[in-house]
Amino acid sequence: MWRCAGGVMETPLNCAEEQQPPPVLPDARSTVTPQEPTTDKNDKGKAVGFVLVHAGAGYHSESKAKEYKHVCKRACQRAVDRLKAGALAVDAVTAALVELENSPFTNAGMGSNLNLSGEIECDASIMDGKSLHYGAVGAVSGINNPVLVANRLLSEAQKGKLSAGRIPPCFLVGRGAHDWAVSHGIPPCPSEKMATKFSLSAYKRNKHKMELSEKVETGFNRHSKKRRQASETENGSGLLDTVGAIVVDREGNVAAAVSSGGLAMKHPGRVGQAAHHGCGCWAENTSTLNPYSTAVSTSGCGEHLIRTMLARECSSAMQCEDAHQALLEAMQNKFISSPFLASEDCVLGGVIVLRCCRCSDAQPSPDIQAILVEFLWSHTTESMCVGYMSAQDGKAKTHISRLPPGAVAGQSLAIEGGVCRLVSTATTVD
Amino acid sequence: MWRCAGGVMETPLNCAEEQQPPPVLPDARSTVTPQEPTTDKNDKGKAVGFVLVHAGAGYHSESKAKEYKHVCKRACQRAVDRLKAGALAVDAVTAALVELENSPFTNAGMGSNLNLSGEIECDASIMDGKSLHYGAVGAVSGINNPVLVANRLLSEAQKGKLSAGRIPPCFLVGRGAHDWAVSHGIPPCPSEKMATKFSLSAYKRNKHKMELSEKVETGFNRHSKKRRQASETENGSGLLDTVGAIVVDREGNVAAAVSSGGLAMKHPGRVGQAAHHGCGCWAENTSTLNPYSTAVSTSGCGEHLIRTMLARECSSAMQCEDAHQALLEAMQNKFISSPFLASEDCVLGGVIVLRCCRCSDAQPSPDIQAILVEFLWSHTTESMCVGYMSAQDGKAKTHISRLPPGAVAGQSLAIEGGVCRLVSTATTVD
Repeated sequence: MWRCAGGVMETPLNCAEEQQPPPVLPDARSTVTPQEPTTDKNDKGKAVGFVLVHAGAGYHSESKAKEYKHVCKRACQRAVDRLKAGALAVDAVTAALVELENSPFTNAGMGSNLNLSGEIECDASIMDGKSLHYGAVGAVSGINNPVLVANRLLSEAQKGKLSAGRIPPCFLVGRGAHDWAVSHGIPPCPSEKMATKFSLSAYKRNKHKMELSEKVETGFNRHSKKRRQASETENGSGLLDTVGAIVVDREGNVAAAVSSGGLAMKHPGRVGQAAHHGCGCWAENTSTLNPYSTAVSTSGCGEHLIRTMLARECSSAMQCEDAHQALLEAMQNKFISSPFLASEDCVLGGVIVLRCCRCSDAQPSPDIQAILVEFLWSHTTESMCVGYMSAQDGKAKTHISRLPPGAVAGQSLAIEGGVCRLVSTATTVD
Repeated sequence: MWRCAGGVMETPLNCAEEQQPPPVLPDARSTVTPQEPTTDKNDKGKAVGFVLVHAGAGYHSESKAKEYKHVCKRACQRAVDRLKAGALAVDAVTAALVELENSPFTNAGMGSNLNLSGEIECDASIMDGKSLHYGAVGAVSGINNPVLVANRLLSEAQKGKLSAGRIPPCFLVGRGAHDWAVSHGIPPCPSEKMATKFSLSAYKRNKHKMELSEKVETGFNRHSKKRRQASETENGSGLLDTVGAIVVDREGNVAAAVSSGGLAMKHPGRVGQAAHHGCGCWAENTSTLNPYSTAVSTSGCGEHLIRTMLARECSSAMQCEDAHQALLEAMQNKFISSPFLASEDCVLGGVIVLRCCRCSDAQPSPDIQAILVEFLWSHTTESMCVGYMSAQDGKAKTHISRLPPGAVAGQSLAIEGGVCRLVSTATTVD
């Protein structure tokens, strides 16, 4: 089911002249009735942008759903506040991520999963579709908002070379990333303050489960494939609640970001897709080669997302005519059935995607321009929590997307989306 | 100029029936006369494989050229020794990398560049074209052969899940990577033993240069673009001598690896392309989608290679009909003129590439099968040192490729290559 956001859009529309309207998704899994668009009269006529966020692909119980929806709502609002204040997409996407990281319920920043040593090490990255610059941190401890470091790396790189012709880094890890962040004014946070009651008790449970599992294996060949596969379902559909956001601003620029505490009980120093260029997020403004601007943020099993470079693959796919079909095929061919994951029987991940283009036709008057935004999410995990909001909306809409009854996580997928038209006077859209 | 390697190949040949023979490269820069193929009689009839290595794209003085050629020769010999002993491509490429890392002259393992804090932090990765698995380490200290850690990560991941269903990591960084390596039997090496007289004196020179440069800037806006660009040429054409290798084995499997100490005076924790999936190396066996098996290893400015994902781009490009033209266009459009590097006026990098396919025609007899290997290198840096060897050769050939006189490093490119046909009885090629 295509959903509507924004004050102007009522029906699905594809503005590219040579293209057909985007189809109503025949296999949409939503049980939520599409909401009628709402309009904030103060913002009417201002195409200040659109945001789509996720609080992870994994499994969300009904009891957790409420908290996740709340944080998605707040994150959308933060991004829209920034857009309304005149910020560009990169700033707005960062604001959304900070809110998602600050929630103790998400696996990012505060409340992140603990690693094998009981420490928190976070990954985050950001990409600016306008400059195509990218910034990332991996396995960084003691920083509450890793996305701020990624964002700062991106903006510092855009300033050009350092002293003596040195090239500024785009990717920092570990202690070096922490020290760089602090020296650039990002406040450190004692690691013990980043752990929550929930993350600490999950660590204890996981540690006990590991000890039990390894005890059972005593006497078996510790490195046999059989042994390794025996327990593979125990964590298979666990919570992989990386967070992310994608934004389009008033100028049609896109940006994407992602942040994660990584898999529970990961080895210290492990870096997942959230820090990996092309894997955690992707943003690319329209160009002579690309009719659409696209932005993607992923969630799920980091190793699967790295090996398939899912963010970039989805972005490329979205240049095809039919957005829904393009994402469906990308998730099926480049993820579930990817030759890069041929040895995996359970492929866990989710994406949020948007693409947009200027509408040159179907305008109410020549003074008015519009950006058409098509937004989608898809996942192979049992559920995925998303939120979205146009700056023309009064409030964000949130949704826990679930696989249809009987579908097997890791082998099937859900896909949903909507459209939104951002309208403005010619002076506010250049 | 196409070069010949192996005991059987005399003329360029492209074995795919619908394709034309690869062209003689019209703009080859070599001043080295192509060598006649040599034949080791003991290996005649055994298609045990081919290796191409590089000791970095950057600037190689005549005095350094000899050492670089020597180490490339030894690295080729190590790979061929492993291939002759029955090893597959992944093992052979690792053996070549260990030799390259062990040289105090290369910027990898022993003798690596020192970072801002005077420490050595290395990146390395490896990819297996058969399983499409990938292993990488970033910013790891105290390990003399980072490629061994990458290789071990790859092989551990192929064994399946860890206890309690945990997914094995493919990418580890920093202290965690070091500890994982040591716990998996890879010997640590005190950091002070990895620094050489040469790397220490380079560090002192660079530090002095930085201090001078920053002194000059006192009074200017420390963050202005103007200030940053003023000194950009000082290190622009410096030595970026990352090392790498690509191999095809007797079964036609390909593998690629890369290892680097990173840019001199880099920030601690900085990770370059050598640890980045799709950027430092790529290997992909032939499949229903890809007529050729391809392998790529890169060298140069890590940030440029990350943002363009050059290894994967070159690999994809090599599925086109004409190998030389494909690489030329990839280097021009996906690197020098890449929209991802639009703000850079000097784009520094180099690649080694091979592609291969089974020859189904032009066989001396039905009992004999052959693998046709096309191998190329290209760089935008002033020079690049390469070596190559077929298991049917008596010894490796080495070459310092240079830009033509008058060409501007970072804006022009050199491209060269050759062909090699690996012949075997039907029983040795399945």
